[in-house]
Amino acid sequence: MIRLVDGVPAGVLPLADRSIQFGDGVFRTLFIRDGGIPFWQRHMDKLARDAAALGITAPAAGDWLADLRAPAPASATIKLVLTRGESPRGYAVPDDCMPHRITQIAPRAPAVDRSAGVTVRICETRASWQPRLAGIKHLNRLENVLARSEWSDPAIFDGLLLDRDGDVIEGTMSNIVLLEQGALLTPQLDGGGVAGVMRDVIAEAASGLGWSTGEARISLARLLQAESVWLCNSLTGLVPVARLGERDWPAHPADQLLAERVAALAIEETEWIR
Amino acid sequence: MIRLVDGVPAGVLPLADRSIQFGDGVFRTLFIRDGGIPFWQRHMDKLARDAAALGITAPAAGDWLADLRAPAPASATIKLVLTRGESPRGYAVPDDCMPHRITQIAPRAPAVDRSAGVTVRICETRASWQPRLAGIKHLNRLENVLARSEWSDPAIFDGLLLDRDGDVIEGTMSNIVLLEQGALLTPQLDGGGVAGVMRDVIAEAASGLGWSTGEARISLARLLQAESVWLCNSLTGLVPVARLGERDWPAHPADQLLAERVAALAIEETEWIR
Repeated sequence: MIRLVDGVPAGVLPLADRSIQFGDGVFRTLFIRDGGIPFWQRHMDKLARDAAALGITAPAAGDWLADLRAPAPASATIKLVLTRGESPRGYAVPDDCMPHRITQIAPRAPAVDRSAGVTVRICETRASWQPRLAGIKHLNRLENVLARSEWSDPAIFDGLLLDRDGDVIEGTMSNIVLLEQGALLTPQLDGGGVAGVMRDVIAEAASGLGWSTGEARISLARLLQAESVWLCNSLTGLVPVARLGERDWPAHPADQLLAERVAALAIEETEWIR
Repeated sequence: MIRLVDGVPAGVLPLADRSIQFGDGVFRTLFIRDGGIPFWQRHMDKLARDAAALGITAPAAGDWLADLRAPAPASATIKLVLTRGESPRGYAVPDDCMPHRITQIAPRAPAVDRSAGVTVRICETRASWQPRLAGIKHLNRLENVLARSEWSDPAIFDGLLLDRDGDVIEGTMSNIVLLEQGALLTPQLDGGGVAGVMRDVIAEAASGLGWSTGEARISLARLLQAESVWLCNSLTGLVPVARLGERDWPAHPADQLLAERVAALAIEETEWIR
């Protein structure tokens, strides 16, 4: 694992950093494949938007890219963390707070076998309601930690979180998309959840196929009636759900169409680092 | 500022620590006065309960106390942080995760002048709904950071957060108590907020005075009709609110009774470190 803080190899962060004190920052998870980073620009755009929503100034995309171009691995899992920086005690943000840029480069996680689809469960932990943070990939992730700690069975790919109203929001590490009467839907994330880059990519891929797409409040009952359900994130891509409790979803022809279109977009939108 | 990690002077934390990656931990803020720590045992009990609620094993109180007894300041502001420890990528908690104990000892913050009461405001940021985290003093504090960044006027002591339903939950750094028809009430914290040690102390002080006490859903309108309102936390103690928007609260005789009773409890329940 290679770890850089502000472009310099480092294994540690100052205790005064607000990521430690408050979880005050944002992050991205992505990968390098054959020396290229799929959807790099989208990740940079989303990182900048998320940071801006918290009042943090994101570094230039070129700074992150320089971190990756120095070791230039052919293949890697990347986590980029942007903290608000260091401050004395208290929630108030000093004017001179200087963000820290953390780049973590690890071996690439094994690809998910998407052929058979995956099994998911419903978490008891509910998705929180907090409109100011909804959609942002921020560092306050205790909810995900608690939800993920509900199971240890490796046959379970992910757990789904419902919100206070019982609507499906996301998986602990993934967004949800579903096919319903020919339309590709994804949960509305105005109260909680993380709006991932792959969620947007998949909606665009579906549009490109001429399908209608949209966001909606999706109850668990509605999810269970969907023709097809997928999870997605930037590391695993689009993963068909085969089973949730007693509900089985057989392979659906939409899956291959959508996966091929996403793969084509990934190639179009790759930033080459070697 | 003295900073210790696991009892050893240190200014940094490993990047793999889950406090940086996820805000995965809990904390306490307290102070040393004349070589003693008011309500020490309560802080240790609450830290252990908060940690247990997240599945983190808290160190023995004696370990934290040893951190404080070595420098043994006569006066200090203390922040104790317990992280879940280090792990590779991913939300899942490895079996061998070893918590880190961070002790931060800073000069004591200036006492709040409580004689005139303080001015507070209502934050636009709402208190989140997340029953699994409600009441816990955990490290996911972005909500407090966002709420605190809404004002810079030093005349404003704190901002109050309402929840989704419009009920008053807490201040960005304090709990709320109010007097209503002779009863001392504090907001119910089953959906959000931090249940501080001082909140319990004040309820016990009020009981000791023969007042009835309780938790309730408190709308903003109800708060504004209260006979008297206070904010409290372990650093500032009990602070009367004098003004919120157009509402002024004159000094109330209950304030001195309550403050004296809290002060007496603080002396009874002090752990001496020198």
